[in-house]
Amino acid sequence: MIRRTCVVGAGAIGSLYAAHLARVADSLVLTRRPEHADALNADGLRVTGRNEVAARITAAVDPGDLPEPDLVIVATKATGVEPAAGTLAGRWPEATVMTVQNGLGAEQIVRRHGDWQLVSGVTFMSGTKHSDTHVEYILDTATWLGPWDETPFERVQEIADLLVAGGLNAEALPDLLPAQWSKLIFNASVNAVAAMTGLPHDEHFAAEDEDADLGHLLRGLVDEGKRIAAAAGVELRDDPWEMNVLATKRGSAHFPSMLEDVQARRPTEIDLITGALVREAERFGVEAPLHTALYQLVRAREAAYSA
Amino acid sequence: MIRRTCVVGAGAIGSLYAAHLARVADSLVLTRRPEHADALNADGLRVTGRNEVAARITAAVDPGDLPEPDLVIVATKATGVEPAAGTLAGRWPEATVMTVQNGLGAEQIVRRHGDWQLVSGVTFMSGTKHSDTHVEYILDTATWLGPWDETPFERVQEIADLLVAGGLNAEALPDLLPAQWSKLIFNASVNAVAAMTGLPHDEHFAAEDEDADLGHLLRGLVDEGKRIAAAAGVELRDDPWEMNVLATKRGSAHFPSMLEDVQARRPTEIDLITGALVREAERFGVEAPLHTALYQLVRAREAAYSA
Repeated sequence: MIRRTCVVGAGAIGSLYAAHLARVADSLVLTRRPEHADALNADGLRVTGRNEVAARITAAVDPGDLPEPDLVIVATKATGVEPAAGTLAGRWPEATVMTVQNGLGAEQIVRRHGDWQLVSGVTFMSGTKHSDTHVEYILDTATWLGPWDETPFERVQEIADLLVAGGLNAEALPDLLPAQWSKLIFNASVNAVAAMTGLPHDEHFAAEDEDADLGHLLRGLVDEGKRIAAAAGVELRDDPWEMNVLATKRGSAHFPSMLEDVQARRPTEIDLITGALVREAERFGVEAPLHTALYQLVRAREAAYSA
Repeated sequence: MIRRTCVVGAGAIGSLYAAHLARVADSLVLTRRPEHADALNADGLRVTGRNEVAARITAAVDPGDLPEPDLVIVATKATGVEPAAGTLAGRWPEATVMTVQNGLGAEQIVRRHGDWQLVSGVTFMSGTKHSDTHVEYILDTATWLGPWDETPFERVQEIADLLVAGGLNAEALPDLLPAQWSKLIFNASVNAVAAMTGLPHDEHFAAEDEDADLGHLLRGLVDEGKRIAAAAGVELRDDPWEMNVLATKRGSAHFPSMLEDVQARRPTEIDLITGALVREAERFGVEAPLHTALYQLVRAREAAYSA
């Protein structure tokens, strides 16, 4: 039974998990900023948009100030998993820890800090955080989750059921890799190009009429990603090119987080998204000139913040 | 004999030509803005830096207001050649017209507007325009020029001698293509990467220690360029990789104009630089995935100005 949950990192995604889980469990939140924890303890967490939720939250910056949860969802950005897992090291041995980061490798980072039961997740939902205590639920697409290491599938199913009971969309999959890789290739292609061009994920990303059209580059990136997946023995769940085309037809163009990051001159998730894909390409001996180029370009853009 | 010269476009490069040529010829200038012509007529043109020049200039926005020159130097940006040549159509049949744009194709654009004797140039000098009547001469590197179509080499030599007599560095070459292509490959590689990353042309462009280092991308771009040049039958005058490494060691990092363009949200010269290289690759059946990707990325960045 999962009676108490703890979300680590209350950005848009983390806030959506914490608020919805508060409907079906004691919902704890670990924040980085003390004033964020104070605000959540005082005012709770409000969701508007796809769902309306007013959640009671127990928040802290130090896990020592919280009771042991049954489920921990690490909802930081990919760059925040290492410090987050570090603060959990040596604590909450009975908890199941679930990761939902973009890219690959979050589970391994958590594992290096403890031998918790691990669940691997990937989420397609999106939200906009309006304040520390208010998040707007924008896209109510699913979280997919699967077992990591020896975690029994029943545990994964239990977590998916809990998320659904809380009002979110979730599906337990015996093998998450096909979904994780589909999203990895999609994100590596779309996010890096958005970051470089300044374009939100709009119709340019699917345009292939003229030689100069960006859709050719996106197709090249997706095709490279598919060759890497094939070499890694992963059969993709969704075709990342179809995901790309579909998303550009959604009406209002999405601002990929990597574009927001470079505009705000923040470190991006490039190393765990495109970087992960490039490392897999190397491991399996597949050429990946386009993803490698975008990896180097985004890294250089980060270097330019201080140049 | 060249007694009268006309520079079209008085940016930094055009101003340097016009002011130095005023020492050895009647120096005319065609500007786009009337107040620019007025200022030049009233105050002349001042050069500081590598040389000190105070030049008398006759300027206008309409070539009909100027006497016929013996030599026209089209010193607009690559994107300005088409309108500049358009205003000259049907005029000054005895003049020699010289282009000094980055990339390839400026000569063909001029040719479409008239059958002037043409000279093809490429310049490595640089300056900073402080006002409409004051330019600082920064790098006193050479202008190389060569014949186009049937233009006799003697005419090219005469122009080079005139530039040298005016105080600039210039060299007449029987075949300009090796120099033009060296600069083309250098510019296509450095400018597009600078525009995408926001980095001036600094030591990152030559760094190859780590996998993520930008030097690998630059080397890939240069190697692609060399393969295209080889297929086009052009033997390069200088190795663009050596040009790249050398330039990054110059102390103060240069801000490529394409980086300035995207920061100011202006149209870039991408179509006549990287675009020209990609078209040559296609013409000669050479794969150019990296230059093609950067072409599409910079074009998409331009599209983002209005998105």
